[in-house]
Amino acid sequence: MITATVLTELIKIVGEAFVFTDDETLNEYGKDHTEDLVFPPSVVVKPASTSQVSAIMKIAFENEIPVIPIGARTGLSGGILAVHKGIGLSLERMNQIEKIDEENLQVITQPGVITEVLQNAVAQKGLFYPVDPSSKGSCFIGGNIAENAGGARAVKYGVTKDYVLNLEVVLPNGDIITTAANTLKNATGYNLTQLMVGSEGTLGIVTKIVLKLLPAVQHNVLLWVPFYKMEQAAAAVSAIFKAGVVPSALEFMERDAIVWTSKFVEVPEVYLKPENEAHLLIEVDGNYPDVLMNEAEKILSVVENFEIDEVLFADTTDQKNTLWKLRRNIAEAVKQNTVYKEEDTVVPRYELPALLKGIKEIGAKYGFKSICYGHAGDGNLHVNIVKLDMDDDLWKTEVPKGVNEIFKLTKLLNGTISGEHGIGLVQKEFMPIVFSEIELNLMHQIKKIFDPKNIMNPGKIFPSSYSN
Amino acid sequence: MITATVLTELIKIVGEAFVFTDDETLNEYGKDHTEDLVFPPSVVVKPASTSQVSAIMKIAFENEIPVIPIGARTGLSGGILAVHKGIGLSLERMNQIEKIDEENLQVITQPGVITEVLQNAVAQKGLFYPVDPSSKGSCFIGGNIAENAGGARAVKYGVTKDYVLNLEVVLPNGDIITTAANTLKNATGYNLTQLMVGSEGTLGIVTKIVLKLLPAVQHNVLLWVPFYKMEQAAAAVSAIFKAGVVPSALEFMERDAIVWTSKFVEVPEVYLKPENEAHLLIEVDGNYPDVLMNEAEKILSVVENFEIDEVLFADTTDQKNTLWKLRRNIAEAVKQNTVYKEEDTVVPRYELPALLKGIKEIGAKYGFKSICYGHAGDGNLHVNIVKLDMDDDLWKTEVPKGVNEIFKLTKLLNGTISGEHGIGLVQKEFMPIVFSEIELNLMHQIKKIFDPKNIMNPGKIFPSSYSN
Repeated sequence: MITATVLTELIKIVGEAFVFTDDETLNEYGKDHTEDLVFPPSVVVKPASTSQVSAIMKIAFENEIPVIPIGARTGLSGGILAVHKGIGLSLERMNQIEKIDEENLQVITQPGVITEVLQNAVAQKGLFYPVDPSSKGSCFIGGNIAENAGGARAVKYGVTKDYVLNLEVVLPNGDIITTAANTLKNATGYNLTQLMVGSEGTLGIVTKIVLKLLPAVQHNVLLWVPFYKMEQAAAAVSAIFKAGVVPSALEFMERDAIVWTSKFVEVPEVYLKPENEAHLLIEVDGNYPDVLMNEAEKILSVVENFEIDEVLFADTTDQKNTLWKLRRNIAEAVKQNTVYKEEDTVVPRYELPALLKGIKEIGAKYGFKSICYGHAGDGNLHVNIVKLDMDDDLWKTEVPKGVNEIFKLTKLLNGTISGEHGIGLVQKEFMPIVFSEIELNLMHQIKKIFDPKNIMNPGKIFPSSYSN
Repeated sequence: MITATVLTELIKIVGEAFVFTDDETLNEYGKDHTEDLVFPPSVVVKPASTSQVSAIMKIAFENEIPVIPIGARTGLSGGILAVHKGIGLSLERMNQIEKIDEENLQVITQPGVITEVLQNAVAQKGLFYPVDPSSKGSCFIGGNIAENAGGARAVKYGVTKDYVLNLEVVLPNGDIITTAANTLKNATGYNLTQLMVGSEGTLGIVTKIVLKLLPAVQHNVLLWVPFYKMEQAAAAVSAIFKAGVVPSALEFMERDAIVWTSKFVEVPEVYLKPENEAHLLIEVDGNYPDVLMNEAEKILSVVENFEIDEVLFADTTDQKNTLWKLRRNIAEAVKQNTVYKEEDTVVPRYELPALLKGIKEIGAKYGFKSICYGHAGDGNLHVNIVKLDMDDDLWKTEVPKGVNEIFKLTKLLNGTISGEHGIGLVQKEFMPIVFSEIELNLMHQIKKIFDPKNIMNPGKIFPSSYSN
């Protein structure tokens, strides 16, 4: 598919040093953080500018070669896997923050900037980019846009889509568009910006991003609340909001999530008592310490209505870091422990206890164990189905049935099958659970408008019946 | 076009009492708040349910009859004008709030509910729907979604799009879809919800809406800040944010806006001194009065760097109401005073002084006067071009040239031509100023997917070269 002529043209665009066909590179760029899947592209190309991206797309369009936009490869739904081979187009060299606009509280950036690098750069100017995916230390802001990434602070501050004002996008035919304007409000035509956000690299390649920023927030307080019963921890979540408090983070972790992670992160014994089935990690933030203490007390008075063990206030940076490390390393800890599958369920938050109960019952029915944790304040529960010593055949036959039932349950509870990880490769066959044929057809026709030759990250989002 | 057979079918669906063909009704439903334009539909139909809307659309689709979804007719871009005749489909009978979900902080509503009615109903339960268009006392929530309405509180709380979680939509062929799930996060397929929001009734008819709510906010403080120089008032806007304060409203009004309005709203003399070229109306809100005073003082210390007259703190409800009435009645006051055209410019907020200066210069060049006011915190400046005693011919020839230049200026300043009023009929020819042909074509192809027969509010958004 990639002929010698095409290779020569790619080299002409980006230079020989940035076109790779060796197995090691192809393998490296053929996997992300999704299970142990590997689908190497035919070639990896690393452009340095929008015009280079455009030139590459023109060649791909002419020759009908699939192109997979590649970020930091931290995705959890297999979005960058080159299932139809083709050009792996890495955005890693487009890693410049073009402008931190202190006058308008905006940042203009290229897509290959690491999210945490961006956060730190704007923090230096007293500004705040709140979206905080667990992989922030390695993921790219461009990937966050492709997946509409969320993270721990979404409960108060929203997800990636809530910060994107404007995008520059290279279309599959090489055309370059701007989706909107650099304004906080916009009622001018259809919202192409939000059509791109979360489209998982299937409609075009984002080459420039304008994000809204907030003034820096100066203080926060972190509470560690141990519950004797898992479902009570889940039920406390909506009760906190009902009391009029909006925490800046509200994370749920069941016992094993913490036990497993504590092998990787050193934690004081008090954080980890076997009699506690689940914990909530609750943060409130703001500029007035008195107010934060008041909010924390309101939260306390809510959680005290449930059966809880002793609540810990983390007031030093060290304590806070330990708790956050514990939370952020769960996924990695599970990965190190066993083969697993990660589901990204989301429901209205009051339905969390029903979701959790249902997941455990479905697991019992099909014979698998799950580790549940996640951004409970958003109703977003990550379900890690862990293999451990489960029989290989049963793992292959029973788990998909269970996942299917779990996703049907999310739908029944007015939720859906992905809160922040996207559909990508591994969830696409489940799309008909949450969308009708009419709805999927609409989406697919939109895909065809942007990408008439189906070269833009093909084989993703749509069930294989769409033969995309 | 509307044959006797079609009429009979419409009557069969909604009942004779809800099908209107009399001139009075047709005229009434053929105008909104846009200038003095009137384009009556051929028939007005008032369905009471989603299934009735669907049945009407099936007939319209089969017979290729234009359908215009009609809300409260408070629009400012001519979105509901029946330029191609057809069925005026009023959503006024679909005015039930279906569920205020106190557990999940959500409301499920039909589109024909008045925005303020919705706000009050959720406030009764201690909840807060912050989007606050000036017409909130009469506009429908469905219309707010069609236009992506903003209003005074958008500066802190965002616009309509930021609260819409999920929509039920009747497509032009009568199919019924649900765009998403009732969740705060969603990374499942393309964002059909945000494609519908702001699409001005050109893609389908929204028949059910799920909105996110916030816990009620208990207190606010209102400041009235008179500036000697208009451009300094505009410059103070971005300076306030730079100081780390996010007001819940930040409104700009030039002198004449207030002078004219004061004929309709009784205001104490101190609010209105001729030497003050412009005012900022600044609100901060929250649950802790001490914090609000502190924020107000931060704002004071910023505005004191400009040439200002005495700042007034409104602390009684009466004073606050007077100031808000003054602000909210500007549009009506202008309308009562003279023929006018309203433009809805928006730029990054630091560019406001440049925009304001440019508008006045362009006015001088083409011989027209403008009254400027708006949601300055968002960079959203309403420009009312007022005719007064301007010559009729010059009004017709020179004003469009001036508007064209003003819109080019917004583009130059990284802004756009509508912040919250939409494009509708009256702004559509200006779309090529802010979108390339490629961008407009993409939008138009999306329109064609949803509406292959071009029956859904035809003649809107796209320049007439698209002959839609």
